[in-house]
Amino acid sequence: MSESPFAGRPAPARPPLQFYFDFSSPYSYVASEWVNAVAARHGRTVQWHAILLGVTFQAAELKPPVAHPIKRDYSLRDFERSAHFAGLPYRQPEHFPIATHNAARVFWWLHDTQGAQQAVSFARAGLRAYFTRGVVLSDAAQLRALVTELGLDAQAAEAAWQDEHWKQRLRAVNEAAVAAGVFGAPFFLIDGEPFWGNDRQPQIERWLASGPFTRL
Amino acid sequence: MSESPFAGRPAPARPPLQFYFDFSSPYSYVASEWVNAVAARHGRTVQWHAILLGVTFQAAELKPPVAHPIKRDYSLRDFERSAHFAGLPYRQPEHFPIATHNAARVFWWLHDTQGAQQAVSFARAGLRAYFTRGVVLSDAAQLRALVTELGLDAQAAEAAWQDEHWKQRLRAVNEAAVAAGVFGAPFFLIDGEPFWGNDRQPQIERWLASGPFTRL
Repeated sequence: MSESPFAGRPAPARPPLQFYFDFSSPYSYVASEWVNAVAARHGRTVQWHAILLGVTFQAAELKPPVAHPIKRDYSLRDFERSAHFAGLPYRQPEHFPIATHNAARVFWWLHDTQGAQQAVSFARAGLRAYFTRGVVLSDAAQLRALVTELGLDAQAAEAAWQDEHWKQRLRAVNEAAVAAGVFGAPFFLIDGEPFWGNDRQPQIERWLASGPFTRL
Repeated sequence: MSESPFAGRPAPARPPLQFYFDFSSPYSYVASEWVNAVAARHGRTVQWHAILLGVTFQAAELKPPVAHPIKRDYSLRDFERSAHFAGLPYRQPEHFPIATHNAARVFWWLHDTQGAQQAVSFARAGLRAYFTRGVVLSDAAQLRALVTELGLDAQAAEAAWQDEHWKQRLRAVNEAAVAAGVFGAPFFLIDGEPFWGNDRQPQIERWLASGPFTRL
């Protein structure tokens, strides 16, 4: 049926989705639960990037939604509603937002020393732990316990998050994200096209299915 | 089949959707094109409220998305992409954003003197004119021309937007919107539940179809 010059050859690999998230971002949690499945349906993979949302907010002169008086109540309501809409459990953490640099450094330590898949497993577990069980990832003891739960070496993880090397690694990741135009989380770069927010899922699905639908 | 005590009686009327928009809001334009149809599919009507986004931003200590350096480029791209995703034409107006108090006063003047339907027709025409043809609604001559195009009395419209009565009417509408928790546009209140943004359409559809899907 096909007259494609590629008939009989394997399809050329399409570039992976770039997925930026912060461990303290409820919408990142929701997106983390669908991004791999959506990408896979379209023959794509996902590169996960743990970033610090605070750094991108600062670069874009933005504040988190819960910092605004009227917007706060709405946001807390919308976090849970958006999770339930996606079929996910959600429990608003009592401590919110939290500092996520230690968790993000563990992510990059795992990424560089044990591979992307291990890092992604940790990311998904961390987001679920925080947003369904209130595990405070900024607390050293709770972060160590989570790492242990996942069968990883908690002592090595703690050494990593205190190590200047992984601090610098995360700084470089944040700078690269800001340079790429990332100003929030979750944030997606797909074939160079930026998509901001969990609520861009339908547009992302259409983009993956049939490419650009806009003249820009 | 039914054991409802209402069997055989007409279903009780369900309350209308409250839809808040600003004439200079691209996402309001997109939402204005689907809100009535979506409501109608679920046996609902829509009450439209022309508001001034600037007033709600101020109350919530927010800035428009295009006021932020990095967010601006993304927003301009996303405006058009979101319109095209919804199957709508879009042309980014050269003059953007614009003051919309005159257009909003014409809306309320029509609403109170000729009925909600006439006001909604004007709103849809105004949003389309601005976002597909660049008609500058803040310009008196262009606003008069638009009113004339719609078969309405341009002189009476101009008298209305300069009249203290309609200025006060709009101020009261804005205050009521802020009091109801509105901090952006488009904004929807459905059975008391707040939904912010054109991108909440899927959640709105589910809410209308099957009610609350969250514990809050």
